[in-house]
Amino acid sequence: MPISSSTSPAVIRLAIDCMGGDHGPSVTLPATQAFLAAHPEAEVVLVGLPEALQAAAQWPRCHLLAASEVVSMDDSVEVALRRKKDSSMRVAIAQVKQGADVVVQAHACVSAGNTGALMAVARYVLKTLEGIDRPAIAAVLPNQLNGFTTVLDLGANVDCTAEHLLQFAVMGSALVAAVDGKENPSVGLLNIGEEAIKGSETIKRAGELLRAADAAGHMNFYGNVEGNDIFKGTTDLVVCDGFVGNVALKTAEGVAAMVYNIIKEEFTRNAFTRLAAVAAMPMLKRFKARVDHRRYSGGALLGLRGLVFKAHGSSDAFAFEQALNRAYDAARNHLLERVHDRILSTLSSMPASAADETPQTVKVATAA
Amino acid sequence: MPISSSTSPAVIRLAIDCMGGDHGPSVTLPATQAFLAAHPEAEVVLVGLPEALQAAAQWPRCHLLAASEVVSMDDSVEVALRRKKDSSMRVAIAQVKQGADVVVQAHACVSAGNTGALMAVARYVLKTLEGIDRPAIAAVLPNQLNGFTTVLDLGANVDCTAEHLLQFAVMGSALVAAVDGKENPSVGLLNIGEEAIKGSETIKRAGELLRAADAAGHMNFYGNVEGNDIFKGTTDLVVCDGFVGNVALKTAEGVAAMVYNIIKEEFTRNAFTRLAAVAAMPMLKRFKARVDHRRYSGGALLGLRGLVFKAHGSSDAFAFEQALNRAYDAARNHLLERVHDRILSTLSSMPASAADETPQTVKVATAA
Repeated sequence: MPISSSTSPAVIRLAIDCMGGDHGPSVTLPATQAFLAAHPEAEVVLVGLPEALQAAAQWPRCHLLAASEVVSMDDSVEVALRRKKDSSMRVAIAQVKQGADVVVQAHACVSAGNTGALMAVARYVLKTLEGIDRPAIAAVLPNQLNGFTTVLDLGANVDCTAEHLLQFAVMGSALVAAVDGKENPSVGLLNIGEEAIKGSETIKRAGELLRAADAAGHMNFYGNVEGNDIFKGTTDLVVCDGFVGNVALKTAEGVAAMVYNIIKEEFTRNAFTRLAAVAAMPMLKRFKARVDHRRYSGGALLGLRGLVFKAHGSSDAFAFEQALNRAYDAARNHLLERVHDRILSTLSSMPASAADETPQTVKVATAA
Repeated sequence: MPISSSTSPAVIRLAIDCMGGDHGPSVTLPATQAFLAAHPEAEVVLVGLPEALQAAAQWPRCHLLAASEVVSMDDSVEVALRRKKDSSMRVAIAQVKQGADVVVQAHACVSAGNTGALMAVARYVLKTLEGIDRPAIAAVLPNQLNGFTTVLDLGANVDCTAEHLLQFAVMGSALVAAVDGKENPSVGLLNIGEEAIKGSETIKRAGELLRAADAAGHMNFYGNVEGNDIFKGTTDLVVCDGFVGNVALKTAEGVAAMVYNIIKEEFTRNAFTRLAAVAAMPMLKRFKARVDHRRYSGGALLGLRGLVFKAHGSSDAFAFEQALNRAYDAARNHLLERVHDRILSTLSSMPASAADETPQTVKVATAA
């Protein structure tokens, strides 16, 4: 059922892995219901074990697609790729592929399943886009400007070359343009100082490539940024390798959790502090809402020939719905085409050496 | 004036760079005064421009040592090393060296001067310890257990081998043992997952070396930890390369600053919230005190043939005094000998390949 013939261009259809995440259908189904209610022009393809999908049998704008297996949160990449070929995760991803294997064509896929498995299966099923050597995971973190900073890569790529970092910057710029509506987002290169001479050889070379892309008018490169700039909101986008990005993300989560626990401890210390907590409750609630990680649930897997979004494994219905919203916005604003166009125009303006080092061919996992 | 002849072993003498940091003598002198009052058996060597030291001319247990130059917070490593050979920073460091150039022998040096210059000058003047290839910077971050987690390296070394990470673990263990009194501190290797198969080749190899050191009884290796474990207090010590450590530190500072600013905004929104803030003030103050970065001021430069401690450039007198306290504790508890003994016994038990890859000779900057 190709999209062009069966639906008007205004309809966006999401393929949803209903079994993914810590809570499965008890979270994904209510989230989907809320999403459908808020988006009258959206459709969904619910993928899961037949018995899990029964509750949605009568829902409007909802296609049900049975899968016989579930990728658990602990399954290795190998198990997800080779042993569970009819998993809800894989079937959902397959619906965003153009062409074969597609039962109900969708514009984007959303799963709360385990990240490693999701990336591996998505990469195997969809392949990477032309000009992209490695897909990356992007997510948003709250900043002091009451907005969000998009950061990538967050763990898909442990060792990166300067060319990979350039590709991340291009893909991230397309994401921010599509989802946040900023056509020319500013890009920061995560480093250990602002000066161009700081950092490893890879980082310095990445800085040169980003400056060249900026000079050629393909990017809005701000320069080096440091870890705290993510939360200051210095740039719209922060680019780093997956190891550093993952450490930064987990560090931020760790500080936030510690702060939350200390505040809770201090306010529940005795009768007086509990009373003060009542007075302070509205402010504490607003504070919590502003840094609520559920608001920025929904990492994007970028660089694939299809849109895949990842909700946090521990997502509740609110968080999962935010991931659906982001996938919907990305599809509606043609993220896939934006990434494709940007990467080709950027690479075309690069010095020959950079282009040479960036394989144009698709690299695919050899499994399954 | 060698220590052994002029003072009883119970006396600890600190060499203090009075000119370092954003505020210079206006911070370092009051901090020194408070430190001396709290430690009746301590002595100090105050190093700085003669006019800056006049205020301390009559202080007891205080030697004044003139320097004709000051390393500014913006000075490059080259300027600090080659052009300002009579800087207060360099003269202060020289006092912890055994032997030549020493006017008043000290047990440890403290400076709030710029980190790059401090490390470069300290490395040049003191040289590295036997068995240590690269010095590292260690600092403590607050954790949820109402304690501290020691993290290194925090920026001295951008690219690290597995052997360097092992050396950091050994030096950090000695630091925690000397300063925090934990004889067998647990060590975590910062990674992007708990499983031993996670991370880059360097990290995996470092994990092997750390497990071998643990098996040989030279270390208490916990295993891989993630960014959030720093703040959970999962291990006493977290080891990483300087790039990752610096990003984690700046990220933590960024989240903390954002949280602080958001709480402030929410509590100053209107008359009602200001009133609530009054009620909540004791708890907010306690919260602030628990995460106060001044309490954990005082990074240690480890792996040198002398003890050097770094206070934050923006230190106020309280923060600078904490750095003096840490330097004092380290000297009193023989940190230098502990690092030396631990590194030699650990290396002696390593497989031949690891020992081979760890140069035993001293590497020195070629400047000055």
